[in-house]
Amino acid sequence: MNIIAVDIGATNLRVALFKDNKKTKELKIQTPKDNPSFLSKSIINMIYELSPDRDFNSIGIGSIGPLDLKKGIIELAPNLGLKNIPLKDPIYEEFRKEVYIANDAMAAVWAEKTLGDGKDKDDLAYITMSSGIGVGAIVDGNLMVGRRGNAHELGHAVVKFDSNFICGCGRLGHWEAYAGGKNIPKVAYEMAKEWKGEKTQGYNLAINGDLTPEKLYDLARKNDEFSKSLVDLLNIVHAAGISTLIAAYDPEVIYIGGSIYLYNEDLIKPYLLKYIPKYSALGVPEIKMCSFGDDQVLYGAASIAINPPITIKKFNILK
Amino acid sequence: MNIIAVDIGATNLRVALFKDNKKTKELKIQTPKDNPSFLSKSIINMIYELSPDRDFNSIGIGSIGPLDLKKGIIELAPNLGLKNIPLKDPIYEEFRKEVYIANDAMAAVWAEKTLGDGKDKDDLAYITMSSGIGVGAIVDGNLMVGRRGNAHELGHAVVKFDSNFICGCGRLGHWEAYAGGKNIPKVAYEMAKEWKGEKTQGYNLAINGDLTPEKLYDLARKNDEFSKSLVDLLNIVHAAGISTLIAAYDPEVIYIGGSIYLYNEDLIKPYLLKYIPKYSALGVPEIKMCSFGDDQVLYGAASIAINPPITIKKFNILK
Repeated sequence: MNIIAVDIGATNLRVALFKDNKKTKELKIQTPKDNPSFLSKSIINMIYELSPDRDFNSIGIGSIGPLDLKKGIIELAPNLGLKNIPLKDPIYEEFRKEVYIANDAMAAVWAEKTLGDGKDKDDLAYITMSSGIGVGAIVDGNLMVGRRGNAHELGHAVVKFDSNFICGCGRLGHWEAYAGGKNIPKVAYEMAKEWKGEKTQGYNLAINGDLTPEKLYDLARKNDEFSKSLVDLLNIVHAAGISTLIAAYDPEVIYIGGSIYLYNEDLIKPYLLKYIPKYSALGVPEIKMCSFGDDQVLYGAASIAINPPITIKKFNILK
Repeated sequence: MNIIAVDIGATNLRVALFKDNKKTKELKIQTPKDNPSFLSKSIINMIYELSPDRDFNSIGIGSIGPLDLKKGIIELAPNLGLKNIPLKDPIYEEFRKEVYIANDAMAAVWAEKTLGDGKDKDDLAYITMSSGIGVGAIVDGNLMVGRRGNAHELGHAVVKFDSNFICGCGRLGHWEAYAGGKNIPKVAYEMAKEWKGEKTQGYNLAINGDLTPEKLYDLARKNDEFSKSLVDLLNIVHAAGISTLIAAYDPEVIYIGGSIYLYNEDLIKPYLLKYIPKYSALGVPEIKMCSFGDDQVLYGAASIAINPPITIKKFNILK
């Protein structure tokens, strides 16, 4: 079976051809901005380039969001400066083949169940630690989707009700407001203002608002005192957020991906295993690196087309 | 159709006969302690008293927990000082009719979908504000159950990662650790120690560890300054917990019950509507009083027997 998989990220747009559950060809461009119609046009062109004779069964899309799955659109893409980006209609009208759309983290957890390590499991979760915090979950064998496609948005769980930290979504005290990569320089700056320890390289970057996730984990690995403290705080916040996720979905395994985790598992996983027991009422499930690394959302997009979840299909049936 | 409904609470054991979706007869005793086998024996005796000729189709049970639905037992009942209480086997062996078991808050939300206000909805949640905080949820039409029956335990969501407040479950910073009725006198005491305001009646009760939920809301209604401040804090905590619930399940409606809410909606609901917008990434769903008041879990127990959720049936099929 040939499948087209589309990964719409804030930075890159990737389109791939899958044959027999494996990626065989891929194209990548910068995600089109400027005009809402450019995105679907680019996707259509890339699909023709990968499969000039339209020799594929269906199309799966894993996308940044929030989405409106009823309308088949990206409701809001703050990083692209766009809203109401049409996806399903223009692509379906071009190819007249089923188009399945999911949020990227939803698609990513379905990849584990359909193509990855979680095939024999009915309760699993996926976390992306990247510019934001995204969660996807399968409970009782069902992909968590909800009435609008948002019943998995635990990156916006409140981890501190008396916090002044504002999330990208505009609300207070979220897991992502602390530990989303985009917010880390701001959290680092706030921590630097109160810092009583040695003024290390990490501190100097932080006080100027320049301590990016890459630099933070790099310096922590080099024993920079300030950076180690901040990584510890972020691990505590991750442990609190993950414990809330466990209370909500009780997964047997949690898979983690996203650039921050993919490159820094050594500085994160041991501390999750240390801190989660302080917060979790339901114990600590298995925690694993995701199966497909940088390709997780692409495999996720393929998986929702290969084996469409009932909870996604309902949006196609209603259409 | 005749159904037996059982509500196992920490204080009372209630057993009722339902005819055509309505409660017709009910018996109530104190929940048996002392020996794990007393509970099922009491339930069996009460069923015979309600229906001497065994004229019913099946039995639904809504119970305190945590449960182990695979084994059909109450795994732990801290308030009864008991563990591993057998439920399904002894009752099934006596009557040879299907016995469906659910956590009390899970049953309560199913009551709304099957018999109550939520019949036409696929995404809804129930919160009990009582001695503890319990949550039940239906997402994409599926009752949230999970591999062990715990995929709804958001009373144990972490609302403050840097908290020293310990929940009944032994973990830190949970919604229930602040706002569960059992924990309110302790939270009141901690607040009293730091209190700079007028030493009101509420303050004096609190500093002695005697500010129970009943007294707290009563005094707040009488404008006691200390009590009003604590009720405000609890409403903020509820808003944070509910916002996390919204992120996890995206319900169209949230039903609230439990003695604290049933008797104090006037002091809670307006403040939820005020505070949730500060925390929720997905907006504010409709918030409603539950449909069956003090009988919510009893109607829940009946509803899981009348219309067994697939996610509960799987435990009966596996048996």
